Amino acid sequence: MKVLIVFAHPEPKSFGRALLNRSVETLRSCGHEVVVSDLYAMGFNPVATGEDFTERRFPEALQYDREQKLSSQRRTFTSDIQAEIDKLLACDLLILQFPMWWFSVPAIMKGWIDRVFVNGTVYGAGGMRFDNGGLKGRRAMLAFTSGCFPAMMEPDGLLGQRDVILWHLQYGTFGYSGLQVLQPFVGWAIQYSDEAKRREYLDQYEARLRSIEQEEPMATHELSDFAPDWRLRPGLEPRTAGHRRPIVKD
Amino acid sequence: MKVLIVFAHPEPKSFGRALLNRSVETLRSCGHEVVVSDLYAMGFNPVATGEDFTERRFPEALQYDREQKLSSQRRTFTSDIQAEIDKLLACDLLILQFPMWWFSVPAIMKGWIDRVFVNGTVYGAGGMRFDNGGLKGRRAMLAFTSGCFPAMMEPDGLLGQRDVILWHLQYGTFGYSGLQVLQPFVGWAIQYSDEAKRREYLDQYEARLRSIEQEEPMATHELSDFAPDWRLRPGLEPRTAGHRRPIVKD
Repeated sequence: MKVLIVFAHPEPKSFGRALLNRSVETLRSCGHEVVVSDLYAMGFNPVATGEDFTERRFPEALQYDREQKLSSQRRTFTSDIQAEIDKLLACDLLILQFPMWWFSVPAIMKGWIDRVFVNGTVYGAGGMRFDNGGLKGRRAMLAFTSGCFPAMMEPDGLLGQRDVILWHLQYGTFGYSGLQVLQPFVGWAIQYSDEAKRREYLDQYEARLRSIEQEEPMATHELSDFAPDWRLRPGLEPRTAGHRRPIVKD
Repeated sequence: MKVLIVFAHPEPKSFGRALLNRSVETLRSCGHEVVVSDLYAMGFNPVATGEDFTERRFPEALQYDREQKLSSQRRTFTSDIQAEIDKLLACDLLILQFPMWWFSVPAIMKGWIDRVFVNGTVYGAGGMRFDNGGLKGRRAMLAFTSGCFPAMMEPDGLLGQRDVILWHLQYGTFGYSGLQVLQPFVGWAIQYSDEAKRREYLDQYEARLRSIEQEEPMATHELSDFAPDWRLRPGLEPRTAGHRRPIVKD
């Protein structure tokens, strides 16, 4: 399969870079094609502006998502954006790899999402989202390092449950776009990990990637699970970390 | 009180800008001091690198959070970062105002968080986080516009419950830093709102801000609610959208 790894780390000698290198070697040795977008090395511009389009439908005032729609039809994105869209559409598996900063991706990676997950291609009019999203048929996973300990992301952990922390990425970004989401890979408490522990993480990641094609995606909801009022249909059990039945007061 | 509004929108003629203008007028008319960081207008750089520090403790390989710690002690951040830290420490209320992009803030605002919410000042060693965070005694709120309808962010709504979507910002960023979190202000379905509806949002936001000093923060947990194993102490009821008791299997 074709794998796109989008990588964001400011330090070439980081453990994150070692994880990236191991993942590329492993996936290639399994016969997969791997493309890496190394955002810091590319000097990727994360700031969305009107200059992202070589033609404008509404030149008098920027409506970013509507310009994305036009540029999706006419292929009039700037070349840095179009190149990333092309890589995204070509992949079977998308991996975002990053150090977790403030419960999310670094800004340079958020900007990759803002500018590359475009209206009219990744999602859009006519109900193009979730299981009908523009990236359907593809899979995605997060791979990140963190300063925290696993217990902190348990359901009753200090930082809140893991899939709530990751909701905006796993459900909000991947799921919304039609990507099926694999469990994240996490290198925990990296600052406090010695060489042996770090080698263990590298080996764990390698083992995980060797059988990644056979993995089942995480449970989620489909568009048809929601009624026209946008709420889960009666009788359906919520099956994600972000959905629950409202508490009915007497 | 002193209010810092951090604003991110690429279009000066946007409705978001109208909301910003109304908020500044309203808060000033109530006698508050208002400072605005208009990130697009400032050309704020959102990309964290080793060049954010004028001195380096570990010049051979960047450890971003450890350099932040040193620069917090020595005041050796670059001037763009130090200026924002000074504004942050001077405020009683922080408002982040933005259009919601991909269930989160635009990249330029994520970069403001990455570079300005620094180790050694906002959080750090010795348990400086949550109710002991560096920004304790201050309050914060999100104010955002969205393309979606309110029902979509109900607990059983299409996009998942609102406070799960916002978890990484409200609990993960604000709460972790010691800020008390006020309910967000949301301008819903802005693309589909006519002039009358938009005026209604402006008036709603104004009314909200006129009495913002008297508002109670959202329920959360304190550090002391968690045991040394980082889990909620026995007998405590989870009181956030991101905490629950784990399901025990027989």
